[in-house]
Amino acid sequence: MSTNDGRPTVGVAGGSGYTGLELLRILARHDGVRVAFATARGDAGCESPVVGLAFADLGPDRVADVDLAFLCLPHGAALPWVQAARDAGVRVVDLTADHRPGSGREAGAVYGMTELTEAHLPDAGLVANPGCYPTGVILALAPLQAAGVIDDARPVVIQAASGVTGAGRSPRRDLLFAEVVGDFRPYALGNGHRHLLEMRAMLPDLQLLFTPHLLPVARGIVETIALPVRGGVDAAEVRATWRERYASSPCVRVDDDGEVPRLARVAGTDEVHLAVFDNEALEAPTLTLVAALDNLGKGAAGQAVQNMNLMLGFDAGRALRCGQR
Amino acid sequence: MSTNDGRPTVGVAGGSGYTGLELLRILARHDGVRVAFATARGDAGCESPVVGLAFADLGPDRVADVDLAFLCLPHGAALPWVQAARDAGVRVVDLTADHRPGSGREAGAVYGMTELTEAHLPDAGLVANPGCYPTGVILALAPLQAAGVIDDARPVVIQAASGVTGAGRSPRRDLLFAEVVGDFRPYALGNGHRHLLEMRAMLPDLQLLFTPHLLPVARGIVETIALPVRGGVDAAEVRATWRERYASSPCVRVDDDGEVPRLARVAGTDEVHLAVFDNEALEAPTLTLVAALDNLGKGAAGQAVQNMNLMLGFDAGRALRCGQR
Amino acid sequence: MSTNDGRPTVGVAGGSGYTGLELLRILARHDGVRVAFATARGDAGCESPVVGLAFADLGPDRVADVDLAFLCLPHGAALPWVQAARDAGVRVVDLTADHRPGSGREAGAVYGMTELTEAHLPDAGLVANPGCYPTGVILALAPLQAAGVIDDARPVVIQAASGVTGAGRSPRRDLLFAEVVGDFRPYALGNGHRHLLEMRAMLPDLQLLFTPHLLPVARGIVETIALPVRGGVDAAEVRATWRERYASSPCVRVDDDGEVPRLARVAGTDEVHLAVFDNEALEAPTLTLVAALDNLGKGAAGQAVQNMNLMLGFDAGRALRCGQR
Amino acid sequence: MSTNDGRPTVGVAGGSGYTGLELLRILARHDGVRVAFATARGDAGCESPVVGLAFADLGPDRVADVDLAFLCLPHGAALPWVQAARDAGVRVVDLTADHRPGSGREAGAVYGMTELTEAHLPDAGLVANPGCYPTGVILALAPLQAAGVIDDARPVVIQAASGVTGAGRSPRRDLLFAEVVGDFRPYALGNGHRHLLEMRAMLPDLQLLFTPHLLPVARGIVETIALPVRGGVDAAEVRATWRERYASSPCVRVDDDGEVPRLARVAGTDEVHLAVFDNEALEAPTLTLVAALDNLGKGAAGQAVQNMNLMLGFDAGRALRCGQR
Repeated sequence: MSTNDGRPTVGVAGGSGYTGLELLRILARHDGVRVAFATARGDAGCESPVVGLAFADLGPDRVADVDLAFLCLPHGAALPWVQAARDAGVRVVDLTADHRPGSGREAGAVYGMTELTEAHLPDAGLVANPGCYPTGVILALAPLQAAGVIDDARPVVIQAASGVTGAGRSPRRDLLFAEVVGDFRPYALGNGHRHLLEMRAMLPDLQLLFTPHLLPVARGIVETIALPVRGGVDAAEVRATWRERYASSPCVRVDDDGEVPRLARVAGTDEVHLAVFDNEALEAPTLTLVAALDNLGKGAAGQAVQNMNLMLGFDAGRALRCGQR
Repeated sequence: MSTNDGRPTVGVAGGSGYTGLELLRILARHDGVRVAFATARGDAGCESPVVGLAFADLGPDRVADVDLAFLCLPHGAALPWVQAARDAGVRVVDLTADHRPGSGREAGAVYGMTELTEAHLPDAGLVANPGCYPTGVILALAPLQAAGVIDDARPVVIQAASGVTGAGRSPRRDLLFAEVVGDFRPYALGNGHRHLLEMRAMLPDLQLLFTPHLLPVARGIVETIALPVRGGVDAAEVRATWRERYASSPCVRVDDDGEVPRLARVAGTDEVHLAVFDNEALEAPTLTLVAALDNLGKGAAGQAVQNMNLMLGFDAGRALRCGQR
Repeated sequence: MSTNDGRPTVGVAGGSGYTGLELLRILARHDGVRVAFATARGDAGCESPVVGLAFADLGPDRVADVDLAFLCLPHGAALPWVQAARDAGVRVVDLTADHRPGSGREAGAVYGMTELTEAHLPDAGLVANPGCYPTGVILALAPLQAAGVIDDARPVVIQAASGVTGAGRSPRRDLLFAEVVGDFRPYALGNGHRHLLEMRAMLPDLQLLFTPHLLPVARGIVETIALPVRGGVDAAEVRATWRERYASSPCVRVDDDGEVPRLARVAGTDEVHLAVFDNEALEAPTLTLVAALDNLGKGAAGQAVQNMNLMLGFDAGRALRCGQR
Repeated sequence: MSTNDGRPTVGVAGGSGYTGLELLRILARHDGVRVAFATARGDAGCESPVVGLAFADLGPDRVADVDLAFLCLPHGAALPWVQAARDAGVRVVDLTADHRPGSGREAGAVYGMTELTEAHLPDAGLVANPGCYPTGVILALAPLQAAGVIDDARPVVIQAASGVTGAGRSPRRDLLFAEVVGDFRPYALGNGHRHLLEMRAMLPDLQLLFTPHLLPVARGIVETIALPVRGGVDAAEVRATWRERYASSPCVRVDDDGEVPRLARVAGTDEVHLAVFDNEALEAPTLTLVAALDNLGKGAAGQAVQNMNLMLGFDAGRALRCGQR
């Protein structure tokens, strides 16, 4: 259902959560597509970030009105929309966990970790948009595993910290301002966070130990990774591997030697920053990697638009906040 | 120089930094001692947290006026005060790094990690008060190393996050509110933080990989530790080891199974909270430990008063914020 | 129902909101009373801030178990507890709005603005604890109105800013961390905030224009008041009036000429700070007053304990955080 | 010195403070001009927000290299740059206070309150960019004074709150994160803030009482104004006056009846939001106005670019963040 002017139309199911709002803000700046609808139950009738477009309480049958639909729904709620889209021949970028690697339903979907699967995106009907934590971890580790530099006899220790928008916009006492300000909390202890399914599926044979923490900031993720490597592997080699792998991506920045990622540099952008450091005084060779990204940007809505760009034949970085300062 | 009423007198050198202010607040509540002076160069003449006591710009010669002196000075500035105190027979709690294990000047000092060295405190002339990060790490690991549960062939991966008061009160652009709010930054990458000297001295033969981060909160530290253990060691064993070791300490709380430390519970207290978790799906057995404390409390001023209490014959927890909610 | 040791017992209805928690923290430090129960529906079974006391889901009939009950309930929910207490001859400090001046039910209650009504507290059966905003406004203005310095032909313009704990602990989307951080919002525009009933009842004949704002901080209130005064009235006169009126109160601090209240100095205390300033270049004589207090301290739980202290014959400031730095 | 491609060139003196950085970020998005230099003493050699442009330590003589220069210097430091620009025939937007109304040096400058002086901008050689606080106050009040609705016998009570970037980026202890977080402070008490010179010059015959406060946020200003009006004037009339006056401005948004401005909606934008409310229960008719803007956007760099746009013949809102959500 392209518009009169020939631009493809898109719809957003679940537009009033943090991810949906961010997606609509990016799409509002994207002059290659037109947003035809944005659904929201509780906020129906309220203005969306797209000028002139109010949220509406619409069901999956309306997916037929657009060329491509984004699903920013609660995990588990994507299925009726995906079914309706399949019936109508409409393409989908699914931001829920429902079709991600490790979900058990990944078979019919292309995994939308853009830099790793871009060849499959132009023809994809259903794209499973990655989780926020896996985005940094997998982009950092997948090329290194392929290059054979990781010592898989030891665990890869990943400690992550995320802003609260990662926990959604539904009211919860533990997410009230007065509960979060001045606090910092590990959670999902015991190595059982659900994002591990996705990480393990994409990084088979690695022992991943993942501990997330809740930061008193609105948005952004920093992942600090202690990476066991084979003898002789150093930071320079890792940096070179990343640079070669991500040379053409507008959304991945590999920091120079000595540069240190910080959350404030990536918040509000669609980039992921990768950095690597040699460590003194360890017998077992171990590098420290840092990945920083905005959980709403490259970790969700930004990557969804990056995927849409390749699905629809646009430049990967169109309308995205990449390469800026 | 006890007071007329028989209470010992104390002085604080460097009272207008964050640690000095916190120390004075605790001492103001301590009815077993009297604060005779608090020095501060730039703030001389301003009121201190002790009612009726203004900051003064005094030199080391004044140490002879008191029974015990606390040094909250820049690192490297303790030496003339320690010398003057030694000459005058005055006892010292040195909160600088100048006499800590690994400093090269630890010989004449008792290390004031209270729970580990309490037997030596009643007779100590010079106590080296521990660093904030080492307090959590060493209290968590020392009993476990003694118990032989750690696998020292693999690194102990310690990722820590601290509030900004840990960086001091001198004006710096990178610590301005607008630079820190919404940010989260790793620093001292490469395993070279100076607190590693102290940790390594107290935990010999362990491979420690330590990465601190700056949190957008005023105070508090959370340290999340991936601990390689020998086969068969589990969280319950670690918890039991801690509970036995710290049974009599008012300032160490070992969390129950399932409890998760959070910074907000320890900020403003003089406690350290320790917790331990088993991890799923790892071949190389690895537990996750969490230590949480206030960098100004148990991590500095609180522990300094705890040490003073034992030096002067008071109960360890007197005037401290321990065992409250 | 005094305890075996002769200490009166108290109970707290609604102990797991921010006011209830703060009240229990203060009572836990008060060695003149014993907390017999703390109710909470959703948190029944969880530990309260009083060591050894779990929250329980109890009804008004249990009020008979104590000598004095605090009601930290939603507005409108105090009535059955007050009735049960009256029947059982139990004294009550009601922290809801249900019996405050202007509520229509103030007849049988003593208004607990401690400094203004202290003579009536020793014999009071039911004390209506003031609202947080009215506490600063009424303590600042009542002595000035009595002294005849206010020009009541012009409005008194009160602009207030409060931390989010003033809005309660029930989950609300607009109070989530990610909604509040970085924000500042006026609310209750149009001069219709319900606290105006209480202010107007205590400050008759003044034209009060009150605009509150929500601050991105957990706790504390600053009220900045443009006060129209009669010709010749200056800041020194106002300051002298306050000092005379509040000479004996441990919880009211009148700042010196040139001192400026700030929220950080009162947060976590049970004090209110009052300051006054002359203004340049105005034909219509107008002073600026500033009142600062903790909405949970002097603005709620602190004042409730201050009232209890006078009801039970203790010193007014017992267990309160007043006169400290 | 237009570029080869015909685009005018601009330079920024003082580019590494908060205003300079924001200005460079906006200019980096402006495809109608090219940034030729950005000066900064302490940060010379560091990357600026304009890709490929490093900060340089340059003096006023370099102003001749560009068509238009922005001065983001400390107050008082603009004069040598303005002189050099005049000699070289280069146009200037001066963001310091040096040529603003009330400064005593406003004679040769056009005041850059864009909506009020736009007719003079196309030919202006020197534009005095307004202060952040005056921008909201003057845009709100000037049309109302012109319409004769204000009762000038009573003071206009303006209470403002600003994020800390308004205080600059030079290190100061009172602006450290740990000093500002959790705090809220009035300042410049006594009606002596220097921005009053500018407000009074543009709003003659009004009695302005202005009290600013420091907010624990990075950016944004909310100004809440109690406006004495003549009998019969209501919010609807004020709203209509604003709407007529600002009908063509992309940067001024007049809120609908019932809408309430909040800082989070304007932070990061170049808009100012204006709202007005009737008040209950006051004998002396008084409306409440609220103006909200980003101190770095419409309050500084955004308005500077808006002025440049009109000086150079672009649309007023080009490259600005206006009309978005």
